[in-house]
Amino acid sequence: LIWRSTFDAELPLQDARVAIVGLGLMGGSLALALMERSLCREVIGIARRTETVREASSRRVAHRLTTDLADGVAGADIIVLATPVRTILRQIRQLSTMPLDPCLLLDLGSTKGEIVAAMEGLPPHVQPVGAHPMCGKETSGLSVAEPTLYERAPWVLVPLSRTSTSALALAHQLAVGVGACPLVVDADRHDRLVAAISHLPYSLAVALMLTVAEIGEGDDLVWKLAASGFRDTSRLAASDVTMMLDILLTNPSAVGDVVRKASAHLDRLADLLAVGDGDNLRALLLAARDQHTSAFQAVEEG
Amino acid sequence: LIWRSTFDAELPLQDARVAIVGLGLMGGSLALALMERSLCREVIGIARRTETVREASSRRVAHRLTTDLADGVAGADIIVLATPVRTILRQIRQLSTMPLDPCLLLDLGSTKGEIVAAMEGLPPHVQPVGAHPMCGKETSGLSVAEPTLYERAPWVLVPLSRTSTSALALAHQLAVGVGACPLVVDADRHDRLVAAISHLPYSLAVALMLTVAEIGEGDDLVWKLAASGFRDTSRLAASDVTMMLDILLTNPSAVGDVVRKASAHLDRLADLLAVGDGDNLRALLLAARDQHTSAFQAVEEG
Repeated sequence: LIWRSTFDAELPLQDARVAIVGLGLMGGSLALALMERSLCREVIGIARRTETVREASSRRVAHRLTTDLADGVAGADIIVLATPVRTILRQIRQLSTMPLDPCLLLDLGSTKGEIVAAMEGLPPHVQPVGAHPMCGKETSGLSVAEPTLYERAPWVLVPLSRTSTSALALAHQLAVGVGACPLVVDADRHDRLVAAISHLPYSLAVALMLTVAEIGEGDDLVWKLAASGFRDTSRLAASDVTMMLDILLTNPSAVGDVVRKASAHLDRLADLLAVGDGDNLRALLLAARDQHTSAFQAVEEG
Repeated sequence: LIWRSTFDAELPLQDARVAIVGLGLMGGSLALALMERSLCREVIGIARRTETVREASSRRVAHRLTTDLADGVAGADIIVLATPVRTILRQIRQLSTMPLDPCLLLDLGSTKGEIVAAMEGLPPHVQPVGAHPMCGKETSGLSVAEPTLYERAPWVLVPLSRTSTSALALAHQLAVGVGACPLVVDADRHDRLVAAISHLPYSLAVALMLTVAEIGEGDDLVWKLAASGFRDTSRLAASDVTMMLDILLTNPSAVGDVVRKASAHLDRLADLLAVGDGDNLRALLLAARDQHTSAFQAVEEG
């Protein structure tokens, strides 16, 4: 491999050295997928904690592992930031001051507006692409990482106006390589949509847990009666708090908007109940059910 | 079997003729469990629609099937009402005017206050017990019924002051027979607790679907991005509308209370986001996560 002075030369993923910063569920799964499918020349794993490096080493998550960011990204053709959003923002600033080779810089953060704005400040030979694979679990960490995580998942790519075609093509190649379905979306639109289908479900799970806890304070039989519907709806409340806090704080207006919309729907439901308005309550429940039916039909057909 | 003039004689479940009114998910699964485990002398299935009777017949859901309520319950030792709550209320009134043999009358409705109140009016030789097995699916109907539905599920029993010990014992025997874990709870307490852990999760799923639909009106890419968290949290919105409407309308004050509590938690979350108060937002998310952890640990240990 001959080092390129700019990134615009074509680079097949097969020849790339990929440094993955953060070996939790997302980064660990990406590293495992790259390793298992032999998709690139070398995988370097970078973790903050030595325990993670040890665990990653025993699971053969990467060819090389380190806790040193500068050491890990040196000579990388692709750098993937797979940390919580506000850590990604800090790491973009750190990388801006490091002597990097020409490379593609990708992040896997769950909000994109602040991240792509920060990416504008990267030196010209570092080609940025925002990314968000739409998969995950309510559990986190390397222990739950798996090489199949990205299979068939929508993988949002957010190129900047400064991003070269070949950098975007390489990001695309990476997503397809691990089995995902890439689609290009701009940052504002992404953040507005994920507020509704990802950050709102989490917020509802939080509100559910806090409400049931209030009831449970007076009567702890409530926990014993909890049925499967409660488990499903509350599952996301178990998500990693640092990750979710970063997501909410970097997408405040879109999240605030959908949270208040949902709260208004709940108030209307309570109002209809208070006056015993069965007709309008039925209409509201039917609308939700019909939306659910058409949404999941559309997904299955599309 | 010699007919008893009062119900207080002991009757083993094994000798009982059980009439199940309503062959949807709950009634169909109960019939299948009784048949498969040979728990009673005879199972009679009663459905409103002839298609259901045909389907039940081909799946061998009961020994005998009918669309005629009076015919089906004649000579039954146990009558189980497995219909939506407001249909149960109507059927209790209908049964009160029929010439029934001494029997146990059980219902499987998801709210208990109005049902046990209606049961007070039954003739003395009809022994009432309210019941609510805490299991289910978001799908409904006989096609998804299965004999294992009740295994390990909490099964709430609500005896009335007029209920004899042996009638309650027989209800208990039925619940244990199909693999459930019976526990005796009074109607008010039951309705307050299920409002939190069952009717609120449904209401949140409804609010989620309606909110995402609003966003989807302007941008239908939202459905394509919907990840697993959205599926889990919205699943209950697919529940049968007649069943859920009956539940909400017969538990209005407890449901209204928890729905407004959840709405207030959402508003607080939006307020904290609006001012960027990361510290209090983190505290709120941590509280929800800790509650989730201790709740599900408690369930697993208990």
